[in-house]
Amino acid sequence: MSKVRVHNLFISLDGFAAGDHVTFDEPIGGARALFGRFDGRVIGGVHNVDEPVTVDRALFSMWGQGIGAEIMGRKKFGPQTGEWPDDGWQGWWEDEPPFRTPVFIMTHYEREPIEFANGTVFHFVNGSAREVLEQAKAAAGGLDIRLGGGPSSVRQFLADDLVDFLHLATVPVTLGTGVRLWDDLAGLEDRFSIESISTESGLVHQLWNRQSSGS
Amino acid sequence: MSKVRVHNLFISLDGFAAGDHVTFDEPIGGARALFGRFDGRVIGGVHNVDEPVTVDRALFSMWGQGIGAEIMGRKKFGPQTGEWPDDGWQGWWEDEPPFRTPVFIMTHYEREPIEFANGTVFHFVNGSAREVLEQAKAAAGGLDIRLGGGPSSVRQFLADDLVDFLHLATVPVTLGTGVRLWDDLAGLEDRFSIESISTESGLVHQLWNRQSSGS
Repeated sequence: MSKVRVHNLFISLDGFAAGDHVTFDEPIGGARALFGRFDGRVIGGVHNVDEPVTVDRALFSMWGQGIGAEIMGRKKFGPQTGEWPDDGWQGWWEDEPPFRTPVFIMTHYEREPIEFANGTVFHFVNGSAREVLEQAKAAAGGLDIRLGGGPSSVRQFLADDLVDFLHLATVPVTLGTGVRLWDDLAGLEDRFSIESISTESGLVHQLWNRQSSGS
Repeated sequence: MSKVRVHNLFISLDGFAAGDHVTFDEPIGGARALFGRFDGRVIGGVHNVDEPVTVDRALFSMWGQGIGAEIMGRKKFGPQTGEWPDDGWQGWWEDEPPFRTPVFIMTHYEREPIEFANGTVFHFVNGSAREVLEQAKAAAGGLDIRLGGGPSSVRQFLADDLVDFLHLATVPVTLGTGVRLWDDLAGLEDRFSIESISTESGLVHQLWNRQSSGS
């Protein structure tokens, strides 16, 4: 059964999982401190860096395992709002987006897909979380769906009870402002089993697994 | 640079990492209690089971990442000793050995390789740890080498300072007898940085990373 998984979602002590304003210069909206302990080079495997294999890296490396499609919010693709300008923008990743699968970008403004040689295809889709998930599942060939963020998309999928697995890492920083993850999700823990561990870097990792219905 | 990695090595509280006597009925020589918390189904990725993604499973799943060849001791392949009998034995895994790479089996008794459709090729090689490692590196296409155990092989590679990474899990059981991992390795910790975490299952995972020369 195809699961919906969130990986490597970082949150500050004060509950923010992105900055307020995404710009071309600040892809993560001024929330850089969230990513200071993240090693994005290992999302395809711990062997991709000549660095110690830490528990942090091991957990980060689950990102690509058995994933057949990604869903992301529009701001993870680019800082534009409203109608898409004719600016040639193809995302933050230039010619090598790391996804290598179909990617469904949630937007009210549909447009033609963008296809890359490495298997990444950006689809721009308008619809509810559930509708977009159906499209992603159809494209994923029976594999899992990664919900790639940002926090607003994750919150929406959590509210609709569509998330099967969530790897969250609490970063020992305070941001003061940004996009909150937990708003309007009171009692969310009742639907999940939750394992927490701390690592030497100061991160606290939580693995949230949705409880099977009836259990 | 190609690393030598050990994954999912389980050890009892009293220091045993395998049982005394490997037989056809007891592939791990009566040390079954070591593997009670192991989920071998996730060695290729946490998506391979419809079970919660735990820290244990995340760590187990590193097994296949970026591996181009495996080295194993003879007893991991089969219980025979001395000259190979003409018994048609192809290892414990029948037609689907999980390795999918060249595998170098250390033995004093060389024989013809055994090849499987899924990419696994068993080579039977006679030589020192260092010599066998050279053969494995040549076959690994620049990827890492997994040292697959058992404990005697791991101990030999550790003694020769050939191990770059070791994922060891201490299991809260006492076996009383078996094959020891740590004999004659006093001071081993000086060559490694070591991270330890405990998980809800009762396992204590340690990630040993060899310190770069000069550091």
